[in-house]
Amino acid sequence: MGGAFGIDESRIWSDLMGLAEITDPARPWTRRSFTPLFDAGRHWLSRRFSEAGLAVRLDPAANLFGRLEGSEPGLPAILLGSHSDSVPSGGRFDGPAGVIAALEVVRALQDDGRRLRHPVEVVDCLAEEPSDFGLSCIGSRAMAGRLEPAMLDYRGPGGERLGDAIDRVGGDVARLAEARRADVAAFLELHIEQGVVLERSEIPIGIVTGIVGIVRLEIVFKGEAAHAGTMPMAMRRDAGVAAARFVGFVSERAAALAQAGRGYVVATTGVIEVSPNAVNVVPERARVVVDARAEDGDLLEAFVAEIEAEAARIAAATATTRERCAVLSRATPAACDPALRALLAEGAEALGLASVPLPSGAGHDAAFLSRIAPAAMVFIPCRAGRSHCPEEWAEPAAVAAGAAVMLEAVLRFDARAAKD
Amino acid sequence: MGGAFGIDESRIWSDLMGLAEITDPARPWTRRSFTPLFDAGRHWLSRRFSEAGLAVRLDPAANLFGRLEGSEPGLPAILLGSHSDSVPSGGRFDGPAGVIAALEVVRALQDDGRRLRHPVEVVDCLAEEPSDFGLSCIGSRAMAGRLEPAMLDYRGPGGERLGDAIDRVGGDVARLAEARRADVAAFLELHIEQGVVLERSEIPIGIVTGIVGIVRLEIVFKGEAAHAGTMPMAMRRDAGVAAARFVGFVSERAAALAQAGRGYVVATTGVIEVSPNAVNVVPERARVVVDARAEDGDLLEAFVAEIEAEAARIAAATATTRERCAVLSRATPAACDPALRALLAEGAEALGLASVPLPSGAGHDAAFLSRIAPAAMVFIPCRAGRSHCPEEWAEPAAVAAGAAVMLEAVLRFDARAAKD
Repeated sequence: MGGAFGIDESRIWSDLMGLAEITDPARPWTRRSFTPLFDAGRHWLSRRFSEAGLAVRLDPAANLFGRLEGSEPGLPAILLGSHSDSVPSGGRFDGPAGVIAALEVVRALQDDGRRLRHPVEVVDCLAEEPSDFGLSCIGSRAMAGRLEPAMLDYRGPGGERLGDAIDRVGGDVARLAEARRADVAAFLELHIEQGVVLERSEIPIGIVTGIVGIVRLEIVFKGEAAHAGTMPMAMRRDAGVAAARFVGFVSERAAALAQAGRGYVVATTGVIEVSPNAVNVVPERARVVVDARAEDGDLLEAFVAEIEAEAARIAAATATTRERCAVLSRATPAACDPALRALLAEGAEALGLASVPLPSGAGHDAAFLSRIAPAAMVFIPCRAGRSHCPEEWAEPAAVAAGAAVMLEAVLRFDARAAKD
Repeated sequence: MGGAFGIDESRIWSDLMGLAEITDPARPWTRRSFTPLFDAGRHWLSRRFSEAGLAVRLDPAANLFGRLEGSEPGLPAILLGSHSDSVPSGGRFDGPAGVIAALEVVRALQDDGRRLRHPVEVVDCLAEEPSDFGLSCIGSRAMAGRLEPAMLDYRGPGGERLGDAIDRVGGDVARLAEARRADVAAFLELHIEQGVVLERSEIPIGIVTGIVGIVRLEIVFKGEAAHAGTMPMAMRRDAGVAAARFVGFVSERAAALAQAGRGYVVATTGVIEVSPNAVNVVPERARVVVDARAEDGDLLEAFVAEIEAEAARIAAATATTRERCAVLSRATPAACDPALRALLAEGAEALGLASVPLPSGAGHDAAFLSRIAPAAMVFIPCRAGRSHCPEEWAEPAAVAAGAAVMLEAVLRFDARAAKD
C-alpha cells in the first residue's frame, strides 16, 4: 500500500483488541451505552486521544472529542469518527473500528509532523446503537440539533430519565443546544459493511452513496379463531393465511423495486406471529412488522403506501380485517456528499485499492451528521457480512486500508479546500 | 316432537348442569382425566347409572359402563356414549352431552317398561381429550385393542406412567387385553357439532358420514439470518418468506380439494413461527405445523405427499432448505356405518326433525369404536360453533332432540336385527 505516510496496522489492531477487552465478561462483546463499562471504555479512549496529542473534551450531549488544531485559525473542523458503544453480545468492530481508524489518521499526521490547515477532531458519538432508553444515535442527533426535548424524558433502567443519564456520563443537557455543531467542514466515518457485497466481490473499499431511509410498519390481521377440523375452508377467516399472502407480497414487491434502477431497496418481514399459534386452531390474529428501506425517499414513501393498500386488499380477500396498520418509525434517507465521495475514490485509487460505490442499508451517525455538514462513509469488508454478534470480524489489513483511504481523503480535502 | 315415548329434556339438562358443577372452580369448565375431579364426576355418573337401574362396572382400561341386560341372552350389546373428561377451561357439552343423552335413552326405555332384545350399555370412555400423558381416546383405543403396550409407559404429571394412572382410576392394565370388545352390535355417539354448519343451515340433526383422517406435519425451513438493511433482496435466503409461500399453498390447495367432490377436506397451518423474530433480522428459521384432514384416506395421503413435495420446491425456489419435514401423527379416516346412518335418518324423519349428512372434522371415540363394531354419530348444533371454551353452548331442546333420534335408531336397530 503506497500511502504518503504511515497508517500503522498493528497500532490500530492493538487498540481495537484493547478496547474490546472492556466488555461484560459474561457476554462478550458487550459495552452498552450509559453503563460503567461504557465509561471505562471512554476513559481508555480519552487516554489514547491524549497520548496522540489531542485536546480531549465532552460536549453537552456527552459526545467525546479529541481535537488537533489546524494552522489557519477560524477554519471549521474535519470531523472523523463513529461510536464505541455496542449492542448486547455484539462485536468488536461495529463502531470502534471507525473511532480507532479516525484516531490512527490523526496519529499518522502527528507522526509525520504534518499540520493541516483545518482542525481535525476524532469523535466517539454517544449511544449510536439502540439504547436502553429506546433511542439510537443520541450523540449525533444532538450534534444535528435533532435530540428533541421530549426525548430527554424517555425512561431507561430503573426509570432514569435520558437527560439525567446524559448528564451522568459527562454531558450537560441544560446546555444541550450548544452541542449543535455549525463548525464542521466535513464528516467521514469508517464502518464495517455489515453485509456481504464487498466480501463476495473481493473489493476492499466501499464508498457509501447514501444511507437508506427506514420505515417500520406494523400490520395486524384479525380473523376468527376456529376448530381446525370443523370449520370448512370456504367459511374460514384465517389471519395466518392473510399474513402469509402479505409477507409474500412485501418480499416480491421489494425484489422488483430493487431491480427498478432507483437505488437500493430492501424490505424484511422479520416479525411474524400468529395467535393462538395452536396446531388445531385456525389463527385468529397475525402480526407482521415490515422494515422497508430505500435510498430514494419518494420511492420509499410510495412503497409504504403500496404495502398499506395491499394489506387492506388482502384482508378483504381473506375475510379478515386489517386491525392495525401503523408506522412505528420513519427515518428519511441521507445522501453522502458527492465531493467527499470523489475524494475517497481518489484516495483509494492513489493507494491502488479497488473501490465500489455502495449504499448503506444500515443507519449510522453519518445520517444525522449529513444534516449539518458534508458527510461520507468508507465501508470495509467483514466476514460473511456478520455483525451485531460475537463472530463479527474484519481483518487487520482491511481496517488499515480503510483508515489509509480516509487519511488520503483528509489530505486532499485540506489541500483542495485551500484552493477554493 | 312425536317420539314413541319420552325423552325428558329437563332431566337431561339437570344432569348436564349437575355434572358441570364438578369443575375446577378457578377455571370453569375443567374436569381433566386422571384428576380427583374426574373421579368425582364418575362417582356422580355411577350413582346416576345405578339410579337408572344399570349395572355399573369399570373395564380394565377404566372405561365406565352402565349395562341394562336384553331379553335374548347372548346377543351383543348396543353401546351408547361418549366421554366425561374436558380440556382445560373447556365446555359443558363436548363429551357430557353424549354420555347424558345415552343415559337418557336408557331411562326412557326403563320409564316405558320396554325391554330390548339386545343389552344396552352406556359408556363414559376414559380420557377422550388429549390427556396430560400426551394421548387422547385412551379408553376407546383400549376397547378397539389399539392401546399399545408402549403407550402405557407414557409419562404424565410427576413422571407417573400412564399404565399406573389407568390403574389408579380403577383400571387393571395387567388385564388390558380383556378391555377389547368383541361383543358390540352397534355404537352410537351424540356430540355437539363443534362447527357452524347445522346452526347456519338451521337443521337440528347432523348424521355423521365419517370421521376424518388427520395427518399432522411439521415443516422447518432453514435460511440464513442477515441484517435487514444490508442484505440485498437477490442474495437473501429468507425462511419466513419460504414459510409464507408454503402457508399460502396449503390453504389454496385444501380449498381446491374441498371443492373436488371427494368428501370433506380441510387443512390448517395453525402454528407459524419464525426465528429470531426480530424486526431488523432476515428470518433464519421458520416452523409451520400443518393439520390436514379428509374423509377419503387416499385423498389425504396424496395431499400430504403433495404438501411435502411443495415444501421442497419452495425451499429450492427461496434458496432455503427443508430442514425438517416430519409426520407428527397420523389417524386414518373412520367411515360411519351406512345401515346405522340410515336408522338415524329414519328416526329423525319419524320425529319430524330435519337432518343432514355431515362429516366430522374432529376426532371422536367413535373413530376407534368403528374398528370393532358398526358405529355412527348424531351431531347437534352448538352456538357459533364454539367448543373447547367456557362459552360452548347447546340448547336444552337440541340435546333432547339428538337423544330422541338416538332412541328411535336404537329401537329400530333392535327390531330390525331381529328380522335379519
